[in-house]
Amino acid sequence: MAKTTVRFGILGCANIARKMCRAISLSPNSVLYAIGSRSFDKASRFMLENGFSPETKVYGSYEEVLDDTNVDAVYVPLPTTLHVRWAVLAAGKRKHVLLEKPAALNLLELDTILEVCESNGVQFMDATMWMHHPRTAEMRALLSDGQRFGQLKTIHSCFTYKADDDFLYNNIRVKPDLDGLGALGDIGWYCIQAILWAADYDLPQTVTSWHEPELNQAGVILSCGSSLYWKDGRIATFYCSFLTNLTMDLSVLGTKGNLHIHDFAVPFRENVASYYYASQFRVPIMNEHNVVNDRPQEALMVGEFASLVLEIEVNGSKPEKKWPEISRKTQKVLDAVRASIEKGFQAVQIVS
Amino acid sequence: MAKTTVRFGILGCANIARKMCRAISLSPNSVLYAIGSRSFDKASRFMLENGFSPETKVYGSYEEVLDDTNVDAVYVPLPTTLHVRWAVLAAGKRKHVLLEKPAALNLLELDTILEVCESNGVQFMDATMWMHHPRTAEMRALLSDGQRFGQLKTIHSCFTYKADDDFLYNNIRVKPDLDGLGALGDIGWYCIQAILWAADYDLPQTVTSWHEPELNQAGVILSCGSSLYWKDGRIATFYCSFLTNLTMDLSVLGTKGNLHIHDFAVPFRENVASYYYASQFRVPIMNEHNVVNDRPQEALMVGEFASLVLEIEVNGSKPEKKWPEISRKTQKVLDAVRASIEKGFQAVQIVS
Repeated sequence: MAKTTVRFGILGCANIARKMCRAISLSPNSVLYAIGSRSFDKASRFMLENGFSPETKVYGSYEEVLDDTNVDAVYVPLPTTLHVRWAVLAAGKRKHVLLEKPAALNLLELDTILEVCESNGVQFMDATMWMHHPRTAEMRALLSDGQRFGQLKTIHSCFTYKADDDFLYNNIRVKPDLDGLGALGDIGWYCIQAILWAADYDLPQTVTSWHEPELNQAGVILSCGSSLYWKDGRIATFYCSFLTNLTMDLSVLGTKGNLHIHDFAVPFRENVASYYYASQFRVPIMNEHNVVNDRPQEALMVGEFASLVLEIEVNGSKPEKKWPEISRKTQKVLDAVRASIEKGFQAVQIVS
Repeated sequence: MAKTTVRFGILGCANIARKMCRAISLSPNSVLYAIGSRSFDKASRFMLENGFSPETKVYGSYEEVLDDTNVDAVYVPLPTTLHVRWAVLAAGKRKHVLLEKPAALNLLELDTILEVCESNGVQFMDATMWMHHPRTAEMRALLSDGQRFGQLKTIHSCFTYKADDDFLYNNIRVKPDLDGLGALGDIGWYCIQAILWAADYDLPQTVTSWHEPELNQAGVILSCGSSLYWKDGRIATFYCSFLTNLTMDLSVLGTKGNLHIHDFAVPFRENVASYYYASQFRVPIMNEHNVVNDRPQEALMVGEFASLVLEIEVNGSKPEKKWPEISRKTQKVLDAVRASIEKGFQAVQIVS
């Protein structure tokens, strides 16, 4: 009988892993097979606390997960600094890789990961969940509709949340040796990917970061923004911050229509998501539209990833190149944002 | 018996004058007294077409309106280039001045107008209607509430509309000798004033305009954007364009709350207006709030202006300084946006 489910191994017990374990259980073509932590006790506790099946394997190291030949794919929610090491090891053992965002500290590291994935014929995907929500597909259809939207002119994206003092002193997202990209990596990643998505993955020509990003004492970004320019006059801006109340805005403006969302990265409601749009074509005034989803967006992501894995494992297909390419472009722009900050807010060229 | 209504004279038959004539008629403390045009026939036609009272005076020149001693106040919807000439003449004849935006071509011209208004003891107000909507006051209360909003962190404002070819070739808003500020003056004015409003009129320290503004062949701005920086890390951005579908967005983000509107300058509905906000304090998820207004915002503006005029005329009060001060700050930032564009997108200092 042909294989119909992907057996996932998880490296690490990060908070986000709880959400992803549930997503794996909600996705009909995947099963949580193993969980590994540097501490066996921690992994056992994580398993018990989250009510996983007693058949789930518990390992006291990441290596053991990778050495388990029953594991088809790994989900890697480790700190960004560790991505290149563990994603490379996983791909080298022919595990498909679902990697938490930001994909890597920089494009060089991401390319190292992608090369090993490609040479081992395994699927790569970064775990940006909203890309898999049906609202995203519906909005994409709107943006591609010349009659309703016209030509793209400008995009603004904003992802912020207000971190408490404990987070600002102790969370891995503000530690230079763990998630050294700070807010830019944690939430700016979403903004950049959203902009590229809206621009149909056409890379901007230059990136100019805004003055006065807020940094912590170790130099990690707590808030920053950037302007992205295309040759034809299109422009996009984004802002990300750990110091501002939760905002997840995306505005995409075209010659004939405009689109707005207030919760682009994580919809406020799990089973229905709204967007607002107006168009010269029949919808002159901004209106709310709802899209129903039968499973949460993270389960839809797991489902899509698992179906690509099964295509490879069962039918011998090649990995889908779309997803690593999106991650690569996102990382490229993110690198340019950092470079612009480091160069005193000069314009940085993006080489396509 | 004390005077209870302000008699308005209107200089010119611009389209916007129709809306303002209605506003004057809807405002209980004002009356349309005279209309002047360079052509008597045009003014007569305008009067007939708009169903004004036959008692309304019709003049074939602006001078005659100003020479009519029964006229208390003038509304000036002339092209920006003519503002300094006619506003100065009006104030010199002790007419109170309600001046269409942009107030002037630059701060020097605006200061000329304001000095004459001040020395003649007449009220000055620029005709930015949304400032007088009750939604604006309600949102202001939210932004000033430390518990619900916290400290201001960032603002984004966007006003665009898609002009047709006729507009782009023939409208006064794209003519260098008439409304030479183009989209920046016509709609960027709103964005800048909205940002200042949200920042409680605290001027930014520097302004850096975005690369690649779109200009017409005569060099008039068709689209542009800018980033505004405050010393304490606050940042604001705006974008205005004649080349993009109608958008009137304002987002104001604070440490504890955030506020969004999709129709800040001209509410989609005349008698009720929405805003969206979320706050750590009781409103974690973005919610829509409605504010009912009994009269359209332009009538509320006329009402407020007329009540200030009556305070001066009846009670001998001094003119309210708040309104000219807001216009002045808006013009100052607008000048800096232009200067930054002219200086190749360098940061331009704002002197308080």
